[in-house]
Order: sequence, then C-alpha cells, then structure tokens
Amino acid sequence: MPHIQINNPLPGISGLLKQYPHTCKPLCDLAETLLRGASTISSADRELIAAYVSHLNDCNFCHSSHASAAACHYGNDYAPIDWVLQDPQAAPFTPKLKAFLALAARVQQGGKKVTESDIAEARLQGATDDEIHQVVLIAAAFCMFNRYVDGLATQAPREREAYRESGRIMAEVGYIRER
Amino acid sequence: MPHIQINNPLPGISGLLKQYPHTCKPLCDLAETLLRGASTISSADRELIAAYVSHLNDCNFCHSSHASAAACHYGNDYAPIDWVLQDPQAAPFTPKLKAFLALAARVQQGGKKVTESDIAEARLQGATDDEIHQVVLIAAAFCMFNRYVDGLATQAPREREAYRESGRIMAEVGYIRER
Repeated sequence: MPHIQINNPLPGISGLLKQYPHTCKPLCDLAETLLRGASTISSADRELIAAYVSHLNDCNFCHSSHASAAACHYGNDYAPIDWVLQDPQAAPFTPKLKAFLALAARVQQGGKKVTESDIAEARLQGATDDEIHQVVLIAAAFCMFNRYVDGLATQAPREREAYRESGRIMAEVGYIRER
Repeated sequence: MPHIQINNPLPGISGLLKQYPHTCKPLCDLAETLLRGASTISSADRELIAAYVSHLNDCNFCHSSHASAAACHYGNDYAPIDWVLQDPQAAPFTPKLKAFLALAARVQQGGKKVTESDIAEARLQGATDDEIHQVVLIAAAFCMFNRYVDGLATQAPREREAYRESGRIMAEVGYIRER
C-alpha cells in the first residue's frame, strides 16, 4: 500500500507525477535534460548510470524503468544491465564507462564520498569536466527520484517484462508529458 | 578545489547553476515549487526541513543557505536552526513539525527507511496526504542537491553570517534566476 492515496492506477513515480502536476513539470524537465538532452555521453550510457544508481538504492521501479530504457537504446540488449547488477568493474564496459559507474556509485553513498582519485581516473579515461558534471548530477538526481518513489511506498511490478513498453517510450519519446 | 573548473566565483550550487543553464532551469524550478509554491506548510518550515536534511547529509553550503532562508522567514530567528542541529524531537517545535522532521530524516537515510509508523505519527499530528508528499519530496530533493554540491567539491564559506544576504534573497525573491 502506498503511504498516500494515489488517484490513478499508474505504478511507481508515474502515479505521483500524474497526481501532482506542479512537481511533475520540473521533475520531468530534469529527467529529460539529464537523460536525453545534448551530451557527449550517449543516452544509453546515461540511462544505464540511472539504472545502476537506482539498483544501489534498492529502488525496483526506477531500476527496472531505466534498465528498460537503456536496453532499448542499446538495441534491446539487456546484457549491460546484467553486468551492472553483478560487478560493473569486471564487465566488458569501456574504461571510461567503468569510471563513470564508479563515480556514480560514490555519489550514491554521499557527495563527500567522491575522491580526487575517482575524478583522476575518469579524466585518465578521457572524461571532460562537462561529463563529470553530468555523471555526478545524474547520480544525485536518482538519489532523489529513488527516495521519492520508495519514500511514499509506491507500488510497481517486479518483472522486467512489465517495463518493456514504458522503457521504449522513455527512450524514444522522452520524459515530457502532456500536462 | 572543486573537482571541475567553475567559470565564475559563486559558491556552492550557485556557481554550477550559472555555469550550466540547461540543468539550472529545472533545478531552480523544482526548488521554487517545493520551497515557495502554494502549500499548507509554511515556507519557513519547508526551508527548515531543507536545512535539516542538508545537515544530516553534512552539506555545509545547502545547510547554511536554507538555514538563512528559514531564519529570514521566521523573522531573523536562528533558534529553530539551532534546535534542528541539536535534537529536533526535544525542541519546542509543534508535534506536527516534529513528525515532518522525523519523516524527512527517514527519507534522508533511504526511501525504504520510511515506516508505516512514521506516516501514522504524521497523520496523528494532522498531516494531510499532500503534506506527506511534500515533505518526502523536499527531503528527497535535498539528497540530490547536497550530493550535487559536495560530489563536485564546490567551495563555500563556513560562517553563518556569509549566508545572510543570499538567504534573504532566497526567502524574499526566490529561486528563479535570470537566464
């Protein structure tokens, strides 16, 4: 049972966004900018970072949603999702994406957990200041979205299959909804 | 030293907002809606919740900024700030505000840390669904803002006095900047 009454049957954050249009707008604008705005990091990799942070925060809805969007961007390939659920540093990601995932994991623990050596490693693998800024803000934003979704005990399906269509819409259409 | 180069001398999140206008807009819109938008919770109390969560996340800049805004709303009274820095549950807050602060502290720990009894206590003290929604989202949002500010190691003054004028502007003018 959600902690508050939700006036529609939508799962996870979707029901909250529909019920609360004033907060929906900046939250969706932020997701759109971070995950689909102009960037030198692919939307696939940005969605993967979002799915990874959501997994670290144990947020099933956000993990499954952004995993599905990432898989859609990767050409319906869930292998990168399975890799982040196991050990991303042991997976066949590029060194740069590994550095981004490690940085995101630090931010998930807390802003002050990010070390000079996390940043140095990202730079060594070719990260720019703008990319470091994006990765930190994506990871920080999912520490918000995850707490919003689970702090209100919203309900959501467990199985990956249930997120396929919503993930495709997130990847192909985006986060800006009719209001 | 910040982890990335900041092209202006502004402290904390202010320098990041100025440097990155695309993410500035939704972040400022969110802060404005959460802290100054129409609500049955006073802006003073919402700023206090923001300052409290930022303190729990050990984010000096966000704590000091929102403490200053809250103090301005309370009529230049810093006593409520000093109370949240000590033990808010032992302070002379209303039972409803104590319940909100306790709920915010749970969200700071993680979305799934919020218990049925935290919600029941808030309701017992008169909280509505909309108010519970707001408190959870304010606390969640500051888990983002705090990580953004400290994850990039932005610099900021320590002393309370340095935040007096910016807090007044946050309280009286708000978060929507010229872009």
